[in-house]
Amino acid sequence: MDIQRVTVLGAGSWGTTFAKVLGDAGRDVTMWARRPEVAAEITDAGTNGGYLPGVALPSRITATADPAAALDGAQAVVLAVPSQSLRANLTAWRGLLPPDAVLVSLAKGVELGTLKRMSEVITEIAGVPDGQVVVVSGPNLAKEIAQEQPSAAVVACADHERAVAVQRACSTGYFRPYTNTDVVGCELGGACKNVIALSCGMAAGLGFGTNTMATLITRGLAEMARLGVKLGADPLTFAGLAGVGDLVATCSSPLSRNRTFGERLGRGESVAQAQEAVGGQVAEGVKSCTSIRELASGLGVDMPITDAMHRVCHGGEDPRRLGAELLGRTRKHEWS
Amino acid sequence: MDIQRVTVLGAGSWGTTFAKVLGDAGRDVTMWARRPEVAAEITDAGTNGGYLPGVALPSRITATADPAAALDGAQAVVLAVPSQSLRANLTAWRGLLPPDAVLVSLAKGVELGTLKRMSEVITEIAGVPDGQVVVVSGPNLAKEIAQEQPSAAVVACADHERAVAVQRACSTGYFRPYTNTDVVGCELGGACKNVIALSCGMAAGLGFGTNTMATLITRGLAEMARLGVKLGADPLTFAGLAGVGDLVATCSSPLSRNRTFGERLGRGESVAQAQEAVGGQVAEGVKSCTSIRELASGLGVDMPITDAMHRVCHGGEDPRRLGAELLGRTRKHEWS
Repeated sequence: MDIQRVTVLGAGSWGTTFAKVLGDAGRDVTMWARRPEVAAEITDAGTNGGYLPGVALPSRITATADPAAALDGAQAVVLAVPSQSLRANLTAWRGLLPPDAVLVSLAKGVELGTLKRMSEVITEIAGVPDGQVVVVSGPNLAKEIAQEQPSAAVVACADHERAVAVQRACSTGYFRPYTNTDVVGCELGGACKNVIALSCGMAAGLGFGTNTMATLITRGLAEMARLGVKLGADPLTFAGLAGVGDLVATCSSPLSRNRTFGERLGRGESVAQAQEAVGGQVAEGVKSCTSIRELASGLGVDMPITDAMHRVCHGGEDPRRLGAELLGRTRKHEWS
Repeated sequence: MDIQRVTVLGAGSWGTTFAKVLGDAGRDVTMWARRPEVAAEITDAGTNGGYLPGVALPSRITATADPAAALDGAQAVVLAVPSQSLRANLTAWRGLLPPDAVLVSLAKGVELGTLKRMSEVITEIAGVPDGQVVVVSGPNLAKEIAQEQPSAAVVACADHERAVAVQRACSTGYFRPYTNTDVVGCELGGACKNVIALSCGMAAGLGFGTNTMATLITRGLAEMARLGVKLGADPLTFAGLAGVGDLVATCSSPLSRNRTFGERLGRGESVAQAQEAVGGQVAEGVKSCTSIRELASGLGVDMPITDAMHRVCHGGEDPRRLGAELLGRTRKHEWS
């Protein structure tokens, strides 16, 4: 299976960066952008200054605001829209998807209400089998990859051949994808890490240092692995690039929106104030903590950090009350 | 078993901080400092300004430069000297150790030449059984704990009762120890993390960002777990506070000596230049990479990051050559 014609739906920073990776890997890329002026800028100037200022896109990338034109002839379709809008977007695009195209998900989250992972939303709406959906995850801060800094990622699919085809389509000198068959683990790692990053930001905003952040990352990894294993994920996935790798990158980078949002909450801002300060968008972890908590609770899985983030973001709890609670639980043995 | 009288041998920043934790937990603490003026400052002024400026030590801590006086009546003896000098120090103190005292190791490293872990050096020199040696590890940057920031740690001992006794002796509102019986895993995590922190610093010095650091942490965790499992450690330990927790804290903190040292090497300084710039002391990871590499190689365990650090620190290799090598290895599947 060889993938040459790729369509990227969504022109935010990760979608545009992944399009650049595909272009640099020699693929013919068409992007869809919601706003025609962004599509025109990508096609005409080879830039997407609103998201990736100063980055030159490869000339083999063109863009359009017309989804039908964007999807025509695609062998792979990359879904690069926010997780909570994926269902609505995909429903609108459903009739335009070439039937055999591999569907590649860059979205990270658990859908509010249905509690579905993104690949589950995709198979449901697109009506394709599991093996036709590929998930890309890992320690992938878009801006650093756009600067061609060396990065590794995981390309996960139930069908190993399709994972290998996508791996080949996005391998460049600076972007090194590894295959994996554990779609559930990769998706949960990607979704849960946003909530843990929120908690790390909150700790920083409260004035805590690196020990606290490292402890939240460690306990956060444990709680996401507990949820993953309950849902059939391989625990090893959480020790890898889509688990600890993505988690560490998101929690420690000043570029992470979830971390920055959490920092504002830790400094005493309300969710509404923080949202206004960052230009109206709420961080993904603020939404995901609700759906992940509900998913965990239905399965009887204990996720104390996620639960605490939910209470702060949606229950009016004061972040200052959390320090003692999260670190002061009376545990005797590390794994009991 | 109740521990009330504790002796801390070594008055560096971690030894002094741990003495403060023990004092705040209500224990009677006597410290031994090599330099009489440091011992006098601790006893008289309640400070150790050379290592912990601005930190007030609890009044129940006294110090002496006389090891016999320090060790008299100790129920637990905390060894807080650098790993490569532990053998020589302990040999000098051997006749002074109360025979039933629990020996608590804060040192992290693998001994050059013998390739022994610190607890192995202790049982050998002190002539005590395994179950009398306790290892403390975790995401524990001394300066943050000295400021009473909330931190968690692991207290590991083959004898669970002794681990519990030490856990009780060092539990405070800001320091939360968990017990574990996997001494091998905790010690290897502590030793190997210094080498990985060196590599993270080097990557930062070369201009790489958070994705690269997160990838080095992930692959570093995998290589230390491979070595640990081969030596009988529990793989879960590496997913915990003494594994990923300690690793993330050391690799991401600007307070970490290993990270800072690696940064200098990444910017093009030689080991000798970096050593001179930081006041004559070489970072622990510079020594440990040699012993850990030798240990791994004897067991047939592949540790590419440790091996690369050895080549840079002791083989004159240019760090700029490593980026492509460490991230560009032709792997198809994440765990193959």
